Amino acid sequence: MEYKAQYEAYLAQASKALDAACGQFLPETSEVCRAARYSLLGGGKRIRAVLVLSVCDLLGGDKAAAGQFAAAVEMLHCYSLIHDDLPCMDNDDLRRGRPSCHKAFDEATAMLAGDVLLTEAFEVVANAPASAQACVRAARALGAGAGSRGMVYGQELDLKYEALAATEDQLRLIHRNKTGALINAAVQMGAAAAEADTETCRVLEAYAYGLGLVFQIVDDVLDVTSTPEQLGKPIGSDSENGKTTFATLYGVQGAMDLAQKLNAETCAQLHSHFGTKAAFLEQLAQQLLVRKS
Amino acid sequence: MEYKAQYEAYLAQASKALDAACGQFLPETSEVCRAARYSLLGGGKRIRAVLVLSVCDLLGGDKAAAGQFAAAVEMLHCYSLIHDDLPCMDNDDLRRGRPSCHKAFDEATAMLAGDVLLTEAFEVVANAPASAQACVRAARALGAGAGSRGMVYGQELDLKYEALAATEDQLRLIHRNKTGALINAAVQMGAAAAEADTETCRVLEAYAYGLGLVFQIVDDVLDVTSTPEQLGKPIGSDSENGKTTFATLYGVQGAMDLAQKLNAETCAQLHSHFGTKAAFLEQLAQQLLVRKS
Repeated sequence: MEYKAQYEAYLAQASKALDAACGQFLPETSEVCRAARYSLLGGGKRIRAVLVLSVCDLLGGDKAAAGQFAAAVEMLHCYSLIHDDLPCMDNDDLRRGRPSCHKAFDEATAMLAGDVLLTEAFEVVANAPASAQACVRAARALGAGAGSRGMVYGQELDLKYEALAATEDQLRLIHRNKTGALINAAVQMGAAAAEADTETCRVLEAYAYGLGLVFQIVDDVLDVTSTPEQLGKPIGSDSENGKTTFATLYGVQGAMDLAQKLNAETCAQLHSHFGTKAAFLEQLAQQLLVRKS
Repeated sequence: MEYKAQYEAYLAQASKALDAACGQFLPETSEVCRAARYSLLGGGKRIRAVLVLSVCDLLGGDKAAAGQFAAAVEMLHCYSLIHDDLPCMDNDDLRRGRPSCHKAFDEATAMLAGDVLLTEAFEVVANAPASAQACVRAARALGAGAGSRGMVYGQELDLKYEALAATEDQLRLIHRNKTGALINAAVQMGAAAAEADTETCRVLEAYAYGLGLVFQIVDDVLDVTSTPEQLGKPIGSDSENGKTTFATLYGVQGAMDLAQKLNAETCAQLHSHFGTKAAFLEQLAQQLLVRKS
């Protein structure tokens, strides 16, 4: 299937799995769950869900299990955005072109909406139509990517270096944890649905962290070169806050050159292991490199 | 073993499991994890951990698995206290006789400490030394008790009825979700470690919700009759806020009479199923009824 059509097919599958998860785990009768749905179903690229599904596909795994894992990782990602936008964190009023959760609802409701999405993400994994072994593997991957040696640690580092000048190594460490770790969780959850072996998981891990870093460098560039309309959130916030980014370190062109180089390496490694079967994952990486929003 | 000695033995086991979980999942290098440890290791009754361990014992289950599940449920309980104390929620400065997490650290660190404890609770379950089936069962129980049809829903209801007068039925619904659901999760995680059957789980569920309700009624009474020194937190906060409690509905004596009646029913049901094997769980319920803090 052609790349764009394949992406749309994965998106449709993710969307169906998310609707099912909402129906089962986020009852409409709760205001907190309505706030969670507001943020969860408010669009977004669904890169993490697409990664779960496409990795599972690549490895010939079970689609139903991967669908449910995909919903879980999007729920987890969404919780992190809601908490990240809160006044005590980044204090962002806009997300995906709409008022952020605590603006559309209130702070307490938004915090609880994040809490409920994080909790239900793990409940969704534990209730996936897969073997207990696959569910446990997926839960371990999600926990490792989202927690103290992954995303939350990245958020901590991000806050720490908000006012401090960071070196490239420090910036890489932030992004590896803040973005890379959950992208790797998504990829490993796809591998769990296919009960992949250790060597395959290692190759996929390198791809995930490579993709995550490139994604973040492009994010830094778009914060300088894009428009608020294109991004769905304010631009220039990094430089206003005096934050070190790949764009402040190397300039727009230097940062994009680095992103291109890293992306080429990431895709070459993946290709050398999987050959043409990895075409979708390579094209996904390429699209994230040239994206405008 | 005599009740008190048995309780101390469970506490010691829980404490050991918590230390191990901290070592593995809450690295000292992270400020957020230090904040999480500050709250997690700051004392408390560890009722939920003791329930996991004693239920597993009652059913002849695996102690090592139960120990790890016990650590997980205490981590989850601790996250809920940290988030509950935040300014956008109850805005409490004191917890277990010490500054609450956001007072000892700051708001962003406290929110992330709660997030990390919630995440790691599930990672601890997924990495327990138990069968994949037992881990999945425990994760389902923890998710169901903590999330949208459990504890978070209870917190939502609690906020909603903070300013509204509540009836007894509404108060019971709040407590069933806010307190009962996680106590039931603890009990079911003990049952999961012992791979208990459905009928046993049903009997234990009735005990858990009975215990949770009595616990909460006694809490309401202590808020009126205890001292800040005994409780480790301010007293009289419910009545100052005009909140409906069992003490405002029925007075101190009426509320304690109700708690005694409910406790007797709860213990009788448990006893009729397990006989003398349930002695520890019955004594635990009795101790929670007569406690002074």
